[in-house]
Amino acid sequence: MTVTVGVDLGGTKIQSAGLVDAAVSPGERILTPHTGVDDVVAGIVTVVHAAADKAGIALGRLAGVGVGSPGHIDADHGIVSHSPNVPGFAEPVDLGPRLSAALGGVAVTLDNDVRVAMLGEHRMGAGRPYRNVMGVFVGTGVGGGLVLDGTLRTGRGSAGEIGHTMVDPHGRMCSDGRRGHLEAYAGRGRIEAHARQLVEHGHHTKLFKIMKKKGKPRLTSSVIAKAMAEHDHMANRLVDDAVWALGIALASAQNLLDLEAIVIGGGLGDRLGQPFVEAIVAEMTPRLLVPDQPPTVITTELGDLSGAVGAALLAADTFA
Amino acid sequence: MTVTVGVDLGGTKIQSAGLVDAAVSPGERILTPHTGVDDVVAGIVTVVHAAADKAGIALGRLAGVGVGSPGHIDADHGIVSHSPNVPGFAEPVDLGPRLSAALGGVAVTLDNDVRVAMLGEHRMGAGRPYRNVMGVFVGTGVGGGLVLDGTLRTGRGSAGEIGHTMVDPHGRMCSDGRRGHLEAYAGRGRIEAHARQLVEHGHHTKLFKIMKKKGKPRLTSSVIAKAMAEHDHMANRLVDDAVWALGIALASAQNLLDLEAIVIGGGLGDRLGQPFVEAIVAEMTPRLLVPDQPPTVITTELGDLSGAVGAALLAADTFA
Repeated sequence: MTVTVGVDLGGTKIQSAGLVDAAVSPGERILTPHTGVDDVVAGIVTVVHAAADKAGIALGRLAGVGVGSPGHIDADHGIVSHSPNVPGFAEPVDLGPRLSAALGGVAVTLDNDVRVAMLGEHRMGAGRPYRNVMGVFVGTGVGGGLVLDGTLRTGRGSAGEIGHTMVDPHGRMCSDGRRGHLEAYAGRGRIEAHARQLVEHGHHTKLFKIMKKKGKPRLTSSVIAKAMAEHDHMANRLVDDAVWALGIALASAQNLLDLEAIVIGGGLGDRLGQPFVEAIVAEMTPRLLVPDQPPTVITTELGDLSGAVGAALLAADTFA
Repeated sequence: MTVTVGVDLGGTKIQSAGLVDAAVSPGERILTPHTGVDDVVAGIVTVVHAAADKAGIALGRLAGVGVGSPGHIDADHGIVSHSPNVPGFAEPVDLGPRLSAALGGVAVTLDNDVRVAMLGEHRMGAGRPYRNVMGVFVGTGVGGGLVLDGTLRTGRGSAGEIGHTMVDPHGRMCSDGRRGHLEAYAGRGRIEAHARQLVEHGHHTKLFKIMKKKGKPRLTSSVIAKAMAEHDHMANRLVDDAVWALGIALASAQNLLDLEAIVIGGGLGDRLGQPFVEAIVAEMTPRLLVPDQPPTVITTELGDLSGAVGAALLAADTFA
């Protein structure tokens, strides 16, 4: 029996999953600590323990742990950089060695969070039928994973970053200080920043009231979905903007890559589901060069487990 | 000895080249007729004859003819569609069967003009050192060819169309009636249309004077280059706009694909050469997600023979 644990490290939450041979075993989810790298590492250790316990295996008998992290990954040295959305990760972090030490020497491998989520959806989720498919994960940021000719494409370490596709060069600021990228419109972090600006300028919304009522520290996907259900004008407008930007960016990517399918996931994608996908398709299709041969656009199958399952698959590929 | 002929069918010119075993043999270039499909086919026949003559081989002894054409290619049936830049090709054209008949039964194969140009540059030109490289061909329109993991990517027939990457959703109209695509700024056809609009609105330029003096029917790349050399404000401004748009589109593609290299070709790319490439790099680099690992950006090696050589390689791959 080979058991690995996968961890999805996000700007909002940390989620684990176990993989016992080819079967997914449940893990645990916690909020990402906002108190520095040490606490983030401790949080990862907590969810790895939980997943190992639920799989009924001692930590030392794990074949390995995989971590999906936002940003640029140096897999050889276990270093994460360019990851401004994770608290404490503004500068490069040697996450692999630190986590392995904190786990008593268990082998750790890293890859980009979205690439591992794509691996999860490609091998065990909605992407299974397709050889050429892109995953677009609309979470705190917006990331993408590319499977071309059946193989997950890593490039030189940074492939798949559809969140940094230009949608409007005169448009909104992105988290990295650049202007008009997809993420500036569709990333939950930038949606929240924009909502706060609008409130400062006197606009009204139920978003922050719902956030407090739910006891959330941020405008989570569930807060945004609840405000939309209550016909909040600002929430609807912000999601309309996200849909518009996604339609543009996906059309540009489709015109370049001629994909069979696009999988929409991430916190916001999973929460808003099929209506969100349909609205994106309506924005994308008129912008396609070959509109009579569009990609199939679908939601994820694994939902918010895509990343953790993919990270466990990565660990199994690497260490088993 | 295997001899094939390749033809690059463009909106402005038709160029042939012969391939005698692994060596390029010169062909011929004519202006693309503006009088319908029959005359375009007759033009292709003319340049194929010229290339066969120069290679010293009878037409009937050619292993085959390859044609690179703009638009969407159904290679199985030899049909070209979605090719508004070639006169007479607004509707689908069964170019393969028509050309084969006009050549007395010589085998003909088709592919997208830019994909064959990329094949030429990848196998016999500037792309040789790279396994992951994109060609961007700035001609009458703007097309792209993608080599990933050493293989030319065709998708479902339309991969590589970087000309239809969004650069500004509020921006200029493209030739297909859509707004703000790269081609609307960098395609020679749209540059000319925009220049005519500016002149109608009272702006001054030497562009059309130089065009007439050179006896050209259109604002060719050489006309634009000459006007720039004479410090024509409009020509400089239009090329600045093209560079700006290319910088945005290449950054979006690079962030998505993490390429090793980008080759800039096409009529305008070849004519403006290294300074054009350097200006594009200056626009692109600040928009890269990983600016310390940029792609190498270079000019073509085969120049305006990229497409014809690539088409001859395609014919050799298919028929030899």
